[in-house]
Amino acid sequence: MREAIFSLGRLELQSGVTLPDAKLAYATHGALNAAGDNAVLHPTWYGGIHSDAWLVGEGRALDPSRYFVVVPNLFGNGLSSSPSNTAPPWGRGSFPLVSVYDNVMAQHRLLTEELGVTRLRLVTGFSMGALQTFQWGCLFPDMVDAIAPTCGAARCAPHNRVMLDGLRAALTADAAFQDGWYDVPPGKGLRAMARNYAAWGMSQAFYREEAYRALGFASVEDFVVGFWEAYLVGKDANDLIAMLRTWRVADVSDNPVFGGDFEAALGAIRARAIVMPGRTDLYFPPEDSEREVKLMPNAELRPFESIYGHFAAGQVHGPDVAFHEAALRELLGE
Amino acid sequence: MREAIFSLGRLELQSGVTLPDAKLAYATHGALNAAGDNAVLHPTWYGGIHSDAWLVGEGRALDPSRYFVVVPNLFGNGLSSSPSNTAPPWGRGSFPLVSVYDNVMAQHRLLTEELGVTRLRLVTGFSMGALQTFQWGCLFPDMVDAIAPTCGAARCAPHNRVMLDGLRAALTADAAFQDGWYDVPPGKGLRAMARNYAAWGMSQAFYREEAYRALGFASVEDFVVGFWEAYLVGKDANDLIAMLRTWRVADVSDNPVFGGDFEAALGAIRARAIVMPGRTDLYFPPEDSEREVKLMPNAELRPFESIYGHFAAGQVHGPDVAFHEAALRELLGE
Repeated sequence: MREAIFSLGRLELQSGVTLPDAKLAYATHGALNAAGDNAVLHPTWYGGIHSDAWLVGEGRALDPSRYFVVVPNLFGNGLSSSPSNTAPPWGRGSFPLVSVYDNVMAQHRLLTEELGVTRLRLVTGFSMGALQTFQWGCLFPDMVDAIAPTCGAARCAPHNRVMLDGLRAALTADAAFQDGWYDVPPGKGLRAMARNYAAWGMSQAFYREEAYRALGFASVEDFVVGFWEAYLVGKDANDLIAMLRTWRVADVSDNPVFGGDFEAALGAIRARAIVMPGRTDLYFPPEDSEREVKLMPNAELRPFESIYGHFAAGQVHGPDVAFHEAALRELLGE
Repeated sequence: MREAIFSLGRLELQSGVTLPDAKLAYATHGALNAAGDNAVLHPTWYGGIHSDAWLVGEGRALDPSRYFVVVPNLFGNGLSSSPSNTAPPWGRGSFPLVSVYDNVMAQHRLLTEELGVTRLRLVTGFSMGALQTFQWGCLFPDMVDAIAPTCGAARCAPHNRVMLDGLRAALTADAAFQDGWYDVPPGKGLRAMARNYAAWGMSQAFYREEAYRALGFASVEDFVVGFWEAYLVGKDANDLIAMLRTWRVADVSDNPVFGGDFEAALGAIRARAIVMPGRTDLYFPPEDSEREVKLMPNAELRPFESIYGHFAAGQVHGPDVAFHEAALRELLGE
């Protein structure tokens, strides 16, 4: 794995703010071949960073011995430009709204200006990575051969926005947050956010069947603390909110190219698509994916039949992982 | 409607605390007939009080001209003994855990000692009212002819507990809560709790189809504030937590009668039962009701086929109301 930072310079965002010195942190695995036809883009998810990209590895679907895999970090994740690493006046509580479109346009510059990639065999991402995956398919139909968005959507559904607003309200109910100008992290707020996330991330059946035991947790409380609080409580609160804001406004058509025409945006995708929602995902429900697939010219709906909720695509359950990787291999023509 | 308070005196709770001067507030509608066979019990739900009992009224399923309807208030709801109305040392942040069993046993005393009711034609309740309804069926099989628990369960499922812990964490992330010893209400925490509840209370489809418009709200935000914040933010935080604790430990078998044997508890119900979950209820999912019905000798599963989530039984949608009332009339033998 090669880790690097691509300097975007002055970056004008959709929200009308110009970040003076924007950075896109990324990792690459493997090398671009002579024909330039083995590149795969794998954007990160909410709170994820490039080193979490478990689909990449020897013998995995995204094998660096075969593919040139690029993993760009989402703005706000603490590695690309984020509240926690941006100098005044735009850091911390002043970080601007960054859209999925902003992310994808910056990633496009990385690929074309820095890495010499002009064709993508596959774009695949999980959750917020799926938001980016859809957006790639819409914006660059001539560049993308295939897409596999997993446990995500082409736009943030109204219910999903309500859920996100709840998470944000839980975090910011802690006065220690101080509108983002904390010096000491708002620990109670972060914990409250994590505990709310715990009920959204996994399905009712996951808890009913005590599936957390297979993940190495002895009880529900052990899982809520050891998995959810462990995942979120150590992160920067402003970074978490920055990504949440990106997610909340996600809509593949909300940009100058499509001007809000959602059907046109999905209709523009020419890549072969396997859209993979989780059957029991509580915030990206499969019904939304079904509607989206109908608007895509070359797409198949292939849900994870899993009790792992949103984490059907999160590498927590062997059969889901196998199902997931098989779809990617199929799209890669293996 | 006649409103009254039944003094329970010293009340020993399952949790081992004795409330020195416990009160059960209640309302009655109509009168007990000479045969004593027209009584209906209708316990309240989370945050509900007796005057919210919309199923009661002229021409409604629970018609006071035909039935003697008793509506007991849940402990913690601010009318029966609650953190907000209990004198030291057991008020406010020191209020003890009260179980569903404690509630039902107190209600049984009200009926038999105060109101002369020895037979119930029907027990029916929504949500936490359903928790009490199941418990009535298990504990007093010779007294209860029929039960209709709606959008509830015989015990709080593990996922539901995780969700409740999230709500509580959101409320208590506000330092103004002060472990329950606030003088000024923890407004940000209450608001955070309400906003999290908003995503749980209604289904994904409810928001997708903009069903809030039919309830008189112009937008999602209008609904979240005007319905959810309006419902919860004015209530006492300790009272909300007291009821939440009751809910969290709900289990019809967790009492001296059944000693934790869940199958035995449900098997003891002799009442004819129509169990009515909401098809899209996110925290009392119909799968749990299905399992419970199989353990009940004389029960039918009859889900609300509704996008109104948990509020399928909450009088917000005409067709759900009609479906609901028809089932009650059937159980009443009309």
